[in-house]
Amino acid sequence: MMRKNKNSIPKVVIIGAGFGGLWAARSLASTQVEILLLDRNNYHTFAALLYQVAAAELGPEDIVHPVRNIFRKLPNVHVEMADVETIDMTNHQIRAADRLITYDYLIIATGSETSFFGIPGAAEYAFPLKTLEDSIRLRNNILYCFEKAILEENPEYRRRLLTFTIVGGGPTGIEIAGALIELVRGPVKKDFTDLDPNEVRIILIEATDNLLPGFPECCRDYSNSRLRQMGVEIYVGSPVTRITKDSIRLKSGQVILTQTIIWVAGVGGNSLAKKAGLELVQNGRVKVQQTLQLRDYPEIYVIGDLVYFEKNGKSLQMIAPVAIQQATVAANNIKRQINGKKPEPFNYRDPGFMVIIGRNTAIARIKNRSFTGFPAWVLWLMIHILKLIGFRNRLLVLISWALDYFFYERGVRIILPMRQSKDN
Amino acid sequence: MMRKNKNSIPKVVIIGAGFGGLWAARSLASTQVEILLLDRNNYHTFAALLYQVAAAELGPEDIVHPVRNIFRKLPNVHVEMADVETIDMTNHQIRAADRLITYDYLIIATGSETSFFGIPGAAEYAFPLKTLEDSIRLRNNILYCFEKAILEENPEYRRRLLTFTIVGGGPTGIEIAGALIELVRGPVKKDFTDLDPNEVRIILIEATDNLLPGFPECCRDYSNSRLRQMGVEIYVGSPVTRITKDSIRLKSGQVILTQTIIWVAGVGGNSLAKKAGLELVQNGRVKVQQTLQLRDYPEIYVIGDLVYFEKNGKSLQMIAPVAIQQATVAANNIKRQINGKKPEPFNYRDPGFMVIIGRNTAIARIKNRSFTGFPAWVLWLMIHILKLIGFRNRLLVLISWALDYFFYERGVRIILPMRQSKDN
Repeated sequence: MMRKNKNSIPKVVIIGAGFGGLWAARSLASTQVEILLLDRNNYHTFAALLYQVAAAELGPEDIVHPVRNIFRKLPNVHVEMADVETIDMTNHQIRAADRLITYDYLIIATGSETSFFGIPGAAEYAFPLKTLEDSIRLRNNILYCFEKAILEENPEYRRRLLTFTIVGGGPTGIEIAGALIELVRGPVKKDFTDLDPNEVRIILIEATDNLLPGFPECCRDYSNSRLRQMGVEIYVGSPVTRITKDSIRLKSGQVILTQTIIWVAGVGGNSLAKKAGLELVQNGRVKVQQTLQLRDYPEIYVIGDLVYFEKNGKSLQMIAPVAIQQATVAANNIKRQINGKKPEPFNYRDPGFMVIIGRNTAIARIKNRSFTGFPAWVLWLMIHILKLIGFRNRLLVLISWALDYFFYERGVRIILPMRQSKDN
Repeated sequence: MMRKNKNSIPKVVIIGAGFGGLWAARSLASTQVEILLLDRNNYHTFAALLYQVAAAELGPEDIVHPVRNIFRKLPNVHVEMADVETIDMTNHQIRAADRLITYDYLIIATGSETSFFGIPGAAEYAFPLKTLEDSIRLRNNILYCFEKAILEENPEYRRRLLTFTIVGGGPTGIEIAGALIELVRGPVKKDFTDLDPNEVRIILIEATDNLLPGFPECCRDYSNSRLRQMGVEIYVGSPVTRITKDSIRLKSGQVILTQTIIWVAGVGGNSLAKKAGLELVQNGRVKVQQTLQLRDYPEIYVIGDLVYFEKNGKSLQMIAPVAIQQATVAANNIKRQINGKKPEPFNYRDPGFMVIIGRNTAIARIKNRSFTGFPAWVLWLMIHILKLIGFRNRLLVLISWALDYFFYERGVRIILPMRQSKDN
């Protein structure tokens, strides 16, 4: 199928400026197409480092990059801020606020959003960690709890303020647990000299029988024992049944009193897919053909976290390498369609994975070789610096990490005022 | 007069962690007193660089520093977050939320706040630039105006979105005007390739007959001509009579259509002084004795922007050097009171002033010698780096400035989401 707009140059619209959207635009930029990249923000977020913003390690500005800037030198890539509301697939139109945007080809790369799985109270009281805003709100809350605790004379309420609970023992749960315990043992201990550090609890709760479900056994055990050594309390096999303003109830009936509940237990496909009436498979994620096209709309591709795609009977993870590889294939398939060729199927090449736990402590698995400890930690730092977009961000993040490593400092321990802006 | 608390160690409370509050606490820390420093935020703000946050040059985190961190090694300085509501001077008590804080000596250093002088519409529609929050809101608005303008087909409305008006031709007005025109001519021009840079207007409005009222004539003329050369439209002798959502009316009857109105035309003393019933002289500023004490409450000192203090019949400016020198004198006078000695009068030693206009362009006056151009610009950069608190901030600001200088880039062009936080 081949469609042309009035200038007879095909128009490709990409929704979402995550890794998938950016790589799709880059891959298409060398072709004779007009590309319009839409995102609700004016920046790309490096989501893997959001937890470091929450833990006062990096500034919010350090992990995002203005999208326009990335495509400045590619004249056929246009960037616009737009909160896409729905897609009229029959008429090849996107609606965003009062605008109608037409396309010849469409790549949907809106990613995932926090899913609370209907746990009562979770949506109201837990802090998600999926957006830049989430990470700033969480940081503000964590730092404010210490400021309130230092003034609180009621010991029960003070301990509740100082209990930080993380729901979800996946990679993000482990990373934020490790970052928080190091925040408490280092900078907070030095700054809040009147505070008893033994009153501070970092609790990590996982519903299944061990941390990092789906990862190799050795990595799971390593994470568990390292976090315990660092001082994190770990509850495994403990599904959460109810969340209130200041407590968590586990399936066992146990209630944990805690002012801060961080929800990293689940993500699902971005809700645009449902609104647009796409066929969903599991957890709000979209079913696509092997070529990443929609069955009934071969001009529409879905890539990244939003896609449910199986390899060897197992769903691909919601991680950047999947999104980037899918973006390249989708872009290439659009080029093939324009040239009258048949799209090719997507085949994922697994580059491995890595999870950071703390100082000198990480796990990595590359080409069936597992590393832990210092080598994995160095690898994690290097890969994440390289994945950051922009020289400035790389330099500033490197400096922040070095200052933290050598001086046990967190540079961004500020409670940012976050009131509604006047205009937007 | 000498008062002791129950431990017979005098308790000094300082309200406000600006330059005045910080220097007062530092100066007192070597004495046998307990010091409690209160601020509504958990950080000190370097207010002179707020305009650079607004102009997307620096991140908000770069110009603030956690107060606790500053006094970490001084065991008799305690820091608490508190929004002080009122002062009961008779009973030596401060009320903040549900807390009552007693003092033996009190230093009020709450600084200044934006004053709109009752101009209709100013408080509702103009953007002030006095707090970190103000600077982020203004940056968000400025960047969002460009994003909206690029989509706006109505030329009249587009020009309104691209007209940025600054009310107030004092140092801050000049600095923000210069920073905005360089933002537009550099990064914005490169990022918004579809935008006609000639449609963007930066307008600076001053009520009196020239910019920089109160400064030497040569500096005033230099600023005026340099800003005009850079492309800023300047209206002098133009008092503003009314502000609406998207327009400014001048006394002449002329109306300027503009979506963004930045109000840097006036500041007055912080409103706590009025609420506490202190004797006000002018513009909400407090009358003190030559020793910086209140006439009827010799245990209370007022320092910094909040004080109205004359030298040679002229009011001292609201600038950091005044606050710092007054802090030292107030701290010293409290030590003298404790030792049964008479407080000494404050005598201001004027270190000069400096205003930055843009790249390689500034004015400075030190010991009756005026500089302009490159030497003044270098001096401005050096002094401001040194005045920043913390090695990390100095390093990061230096890098940001260097990247801007050599690559004409602004690193922080992001529209930060600013919704209400859940808890605080």
